[in-house]
Amino acid sequence: MNAGAAGAAAPPLAILCGAGAFPLEVAADARKGGRDPFLVGVVGSSDAAIEAYPHVWVRIGEVGKLFAALEGRGVKEMAMVGAIARPEFADLRLDWGAVRRAAELAQLFRRGDNGLLVGLAAIFEREGVRIVGAHEIAPRLVAPSGALGPRAPGAGDEEDIAFGARLLGALSEFDAGQCAVVASGRVLAIEAAEGTDAMLARVADMRASGRLKRREPGGVLVKAPKRGQDLRLDMPAIGPATVAGAARAGLRGLALAAGAVLMVDRERCVREADAAGLFIAGFSA
Amino acid sequence: MNAGAAGAAAPPLAILCGAGAFPLEVAADARKGGRDPFLVGVVGSSDAAIEAYPHVWVRIGEVGKLFAALEGRGVKEMAMVGAIARPEFADLRLDWGAVRRAAELAQLFRRGDNGLLVGLAAIFEREGVRIVGAHEIAPRLVAPSGALGPRAPGAGDEEDIAFGARLLGALSEFDAGQCAVVASGRVLAIEAAEGTDAMLARVADMRASGRLKRREPGGVLVKAPKRGQDLRLDMPAIGPATVAGAARAGLRGLALAAGAVLMVDRERCVREADAAGLFIAGFSA
Repeated sequence: MNAGAAGAAAPPLAILCGAGAFPLEVAADARKGGRDPFLVGVVGSSDAAIEAYPHVWVRIGEVGKLFAALEGRGVKEMAMVGAIARPEFADLRLDWGAVRRAAELAQLFRRGDNGLLVGLAAIFEREGVRIVGAHEIAPRLVAPSGALGPRAPGAGDEEDIAFGARLLGALSEFDAGQCAVVASGRVLAIEAAEGTDAMLARVADMRASGRLKRREPGGVLVKAPKRGQDLRLDMPAIGPATVAGAARAGLRGLALAAGAVLMVDRERCVREADAAGLFIAGFSA
Repeated sequence: MNAGAAGAAAPPLAILCGAGAFPLEVAADARKGGRDPFLVGVVGSSDAAIEAYPHVWVRIGEVGKLFAALEGRGVKEMAMVGAIARPEFADLRLDWGAVRRAAELAQLFRRGDNGLLVGLAAIFEREGVRIVGAHEIAPRLVAPSGALGPRAPGAGDEEDIAFGARLLGALSEFDAGQCAVVASGRVLAIEAAEGTDAMLARVADMRASGRLKRREPGGVLVKAPKRGQDLRLDMPAIGPATVAGAARAGLRGLALAAGAVLMVDRERCVREADAAGLFIAGFSA
């Protein structure tokens, strides 16, 4: 790893910033690793705090402006970090750089989210900008193997984690389910389009309503990418809201595929999990 | 099929009645098929309307009374129809017939729902009472193959049905997921412990909140038993509430594994699905 600015300077690294503070965490971690982050803000999505770094603001559709900015900086690598609300193609305001690619872009927008991202990545790479993943430039933000805080999964939890990991593996080919809740060998919830927070709220509701009985306490949240998922484009993530949701759902802990799940605000996640009596641990598939 | 009371009289058939009117539908259909139903009401669960048939009331735990009643009637076959709230073993008031089997029963109550049912069925069979499924004695109440009403699935729906059936098959070994919602190849929801109605309400919520976009209309509810599931003990079922939930979720229809999903109040399901613009169809696995 590079120590600060010492050694041969790595080329500047662009970070296309989605919503929230996570792109800034990634930028800070990349800088610690000796990189020189150049932040791309998306009008209407990115946090104004990105202006603490060298940056450019673009509107969605300003493809020409974006490529010119990257080229002007000599950027050869870019990470896409954080969620950007998917626009409808018809709502895009295309600049000249986008109009030149309009037919191709229109095609991409007929695809699902993953297909759209794969297509956009291909356009960047054709222009000489390699897409890298947050896990590559900020490895400290990725779940490692083993317990992250003072609490560790017990033997029963380990069984639930292994069971959940197998379940998510079986769901992979259906492009659904990066997350499930398993309690003592029983599947309490499987995530599909609703998202992890809604799934956890459902488990909390089932517990409050008595649908889950006395013999079904605890449970573990298990989260992993789909098999073959391109982690550069779309990586599962948890954050403090996930920890709070898991606590409300009465779970015993969170288990994350090691090396493949991002932790937004890692310190806070670990601290609040511990305070709530939950473990957070990485598992190897 | 027997025509009424003609032919050699079939031995009386007991129906252990869970909640609601469905046990009465099964009794009526069995009688049409030439059987002589004897209804077992469970105090606190069964509908008082079972008294229109020869019957006996038992409390959960009155195992001795139940076996005596079955023996007195010469019953050799019994179906368990409709949900009975699972009691805790400690809450049972055991009669002498139960006390004799208390150690065995206590063991069973440590199992999951399915294990408990399998164990109870084994006890009945040991006493000479064969457990039969509602689908065997009231086949008219089971989803047949093909469209049930005037509306039929289109080509896109058939693809979603096949996709959903494969998904449920893959989930089988995890003892989760008898039901899913698939729309144009995307999995919108997978049922686990929350039940079908809650899953459909979730899809309706996602549509109302804008989480499902314009490009994700329609969708099909796909319902099937787990592979290897003993249909005599636990059979997937839909009813008018399922149809109403599917309509609220904006679905195009309901697809049921032919021969393996019960339809509570079938006429009303078909009528209300049609009125809401939905198909109901059975599919072959």
